[in-house]
Amino acid sequence: MNAFLANLFRRVTTGVYVIGVGYGELRNAFTAAFVMQVSYDPLLLALGINPRHSSFGLLKQGGVFSVNVLKRDQLGLAAHFGGRASAAKLAHIAWTPGRTGVPLLPQCLAWFECEMAGEHPAGDHVLVLGKVIAGELVDAGAEALIYSDTGAMDGAVDLFPDDFGN
Amino acid sequence: MNAFLANLFRRVTTGVYVIGVGYGELRNAFTAAFVMQVSYDPLLLALGINPRHSSFGLLKQGGVFSVNVLKRDQLGLAAHFGGRASAAKLAHIAWTPGRTGVPLLPQCLAWFECEMAGEHPAGDHVLVLGKVIAGELVDAGAEALIYSDTGAMDGAVDLFPDDFGN
Repeated sequence: MNAFLANLFRRVTTGVYVIGVGYGELRNAFTAAFVMQVSYDPLLLALGINPRHSSFGLLKQGGVFSVNVLKRDQLGLAAHFGGRASAAKLAHIAWTPGRTGVPLLPQCLAWFECEMAGEHPAGDHVLVLGKVIAGELVDAGAEALIYSDTGAMDGAVDLFPDDFGN
Repeated sequence: MNAFLANLFRRVTTGVYVIGVGYGELRNAFTAAFVMQVSYDPLLLALGINPRHSSFGLLKQGGVFSVNVLKRDQLGLAAHFGGRASAAKLAHIAWTPGRTGVPLLPQCLAWFECEMAGEHPAGDHVLVLGKVIAGELVDAGAEALIYSDTGAMDGAVDLFPDDFGN
């Protein structure tokens, strides 16, 4: 049944992103798919993050994050930043610090730099709102990587329950 | 500048959905793009809605909503339900009531039926959380309509501010 639910929910389309966080001298980045715009004015993005994720503490301490949009051919980057958290994940990847210090990946399709503007519990995740203070369309001709095209690489099928839970 | 921001933010990928609401004998439906999954267990979807939207009252009164996933070739349905709110929007469209009474569109790629599980202000929109109590993958072979492929049909470019507002 959880394969049925995984197959159903991947029809809710999202892209794939590398989320960058930073606090003091610490930096980290991780792959996420639960990202969408939620407001035009002010410009807000919403990010769904598992609060047990090792980068959640850094996100809350720093109060800032970047959203780097992956291109269709950047499955390798998605896998790299989707692996077990480690400060070394940024070691051999080109990045530049945004004005808040968060890592921006210039090889991506686009990036957004956000200041945390709210936090709401949402089941097994937390919804973090980010006010977008800067952004750049790096490669206007590239197509975005779509989460449902990444197949089972993130193992999310195992996160689904057995049924709707009614 | 708002054309630049509109072009940048459409790199944050979403699908296109017909959101159905109902309360008592009243039913309505409207097109939305701010939809994503936010939790696996419980199964939660997040919907961003403009609180001045005419269907927002019905959504809150009923406390339930459906999310009907549009297929790539259903731009016409997106335009139909994206127009000015009117009870007549459902009049000539095939739909069936879900167990909570919300309209489900059997011609869509998939549908989800949700009970409201939270509400959070998010700039000029409100984030509504929905616990998914039922869902069906109606046409597994179809591809989802992607919001950025709908071009300027919804006039959203005019909703963007002139700059990041720093």
